[in-house]
Amino acid sequence: MNPSPRRVYIHDVAPRDGFQIEPRFIPTERKIGLIDALEQTGLAKIEVTSFTSQKAVPALADAEAVMQGIARAPGVELAVLVPNLRGCERALACGVDEINVVMSASASHNRANLRMSPEQSVAQIESIVRAVGGRAAVNVSLSTAFGCPFEGDIPVTRVVEYVDRFVDIGLTRVSLCDTTGMANPVGVRHLFDTVLARWPAIIFTAHFHNTRGMGLANALAAHQAGVERFDASLGGLGGCPYAPGATGNVCTEDLVHMFHAMGIATGVDLDKLIEASVTLPELVGHEVPSQVAKAGPWTRRYPVPGGPA
Amino acid sequence: MNPSPRRVYIHDVAPRDGFQIEPRFIPTERKIGLIDALEQTGLAKIEVTSFTSQKAVPALADAEAVMQGIARAPGVELAVLVPNLRGCERALACGVDEINVVMSASASHNRANLRMSPEQSVAQIESIVRAVGGRAAVNVSLSTAFGCPFEGDIPVTRVVEYVDRFVDIGLTRVSLCDTTGMANPVGVRHLFDTVLARWPAIIFTAHFHNTRGMGLANALAAHQAGVERFDASLGGLGGCPYAPGATGNVCTEDLVHMFHAMGIATGVDLDKLIEASVTLPELVGHEVPSQVAKAGPWTRRYPVPGGPA
Repeated sequence: MNPSPRRVYIHDVAPRDGFQIEPRFIPTERKIGLIDALEQTGLAKIEVTSFTSQKAVPALADAEAVMQGIARAPGVELAVLVPNLRGCERALACGVDEINVVMSASASHNRANLRMSPEQSVAQIESIVRAVGGRAAVNVSLSTAFGCPFEGDIPVTRVVEYVDRFVDIGLTRVSLCDTTGMANPVGVRHLFDTVLARWPAIIFTAHFHNTRGMGLANALAAHQAGVERFDASLGGLGGCPYAPGATGNVCTEDLVHMFHAMGIATGVDLDKLIEASVTLPELVGHEVPSQVAKAGPWTRRYPVPGGPA
Repeated sequence: MNPSPRRVYIHDVAPRDGFQIEPRFIPTERKIGLIDALEQTGLAKIEVTSFTSQKAVPALADAEAVMQGIARAPGVELAVLVPNLRGCERALACGVDEINVVMSASASHNRANLRMSPEQSVAQIESIVRAVGGRAAVNVSLSTAFGCPFEGDIPVTRVVEYVDRFVDIGLTRVSLCDTTGMANPVGVRHLFDTVLARWPAIIFTAHFHNTRGMGLANALAAHQAGVERFDASLGGLGGCPYAPGATGNVCTEDLVHMFHAMGIATGVDLDKLIEASVTLPELVGHEVPSQVAKAGPWTRRYPVPGGPA
């Protein structure tokens, strides 16, 4: 059993996972402004955009312009999602630090989302790893690792089999993703205990959604298992296409706030993160689920009603 | 260290903690209807109302009518909040199962909320315990046990001193309340580890608010410490007067759902709980923070887009 790490690393995925489902196109210069602000907060990684086809994800049609327009702050990895070799070459041409590839632990979800069989996805990921050839890091995000909205439970053995395949083809970074918020703390603890014990040298990231309110509880369970890296989304941007009205990714400032309250270092300046988050409602045109941006951190003090006696 | 209990007991406080801050008066017969529905869900306890003055809490001015109108389902404890001896006698006249008294671990919060010094509060609680004389159970809710919005951190030693006083005056039921959502999982674990080890025969309840998104993570930490009893509020009704826009109590259906997903029994029929919760937005005239009422339980399945191949 790993001890709970005293230092964790936070990845913000709002510019990709959040913006991709916003119905209103976020102007390129506003995306750049937000990413530049995030780069100043102490986050370990930012998922900046996705090099998909403009038709598939019009919200992120400006991937090159965003990558070329943003600052490159030292110490912050810039990651992008790529769906195929074409996207991979576009991303490498922009000098990204990390290529994030996705496949699903559920065959039906993989087919619905990516129109490929799991075998085809593994083969494509292998071809991307070879094409990258060390010019960037490659991370694989395994969707529905804690449950599939079509198939239900995903056995731990299946996740282990996929991670085995990923390790075989040379991957060293694996995110286990609770894509539709089906994970619970017991399952999270069990899965991360299993994979961390089996692959101590692989860099695992926990990626949770707050669809059913368990996002931070699941992050706590992952941390108790020894996980050091967490995806989260500024303001809680993002969503679940299968659950209208449900919230999306775990909120970055809520996650950072919890770790700080627990005495766990994140390297993140929470005040700067909240400053960036409070710009979101105007930027996206709707309220966002963040709690800490509304309530302030636990250190906030209020005057006693009526004042001093 | 206590093992995490395999069975927990859920108390719903929405009819008191939730309704008391609703600006719109909930008609008595609607309160009765909701409480009757809650009594059929398998909850261990319901905090039905508060026997305060009509001027102080107009939203609960119908305390007697509610108590006299509701059903008495076997196995469900009916609790009420009482602020003083007058309220205590009114409550006993209605045949309540439990009298819940409140004081704050923070002197400034106690004075702001109750207009008494902590010593005055302890003395009044003692007089209530004597007046009840075994005609009902008495529970004390210690507010701001995890932090005070005026004073900040509340030392564990202070909570221990108050519990000592409560035990001395004959109390056997103690709720430790995170009144304004300042608790974090490390502090929760530490405080409950401390009190459960010191008083194995006292019945402790964990009462969390989700003000900063940590409600379920704190419940998880309390459960890991061995806590078996949890307050929560249907739909997440309730709020924090110091943080406009912030959410209130931990949501009952989200808490029950998490425990069920973890394989922990609650005795609660989650479907019935959700059925009761979805009536709330119409009843109170605004959206409520519940996540599971919107997203459905983790067992919900969706058709594969496009249907079978």
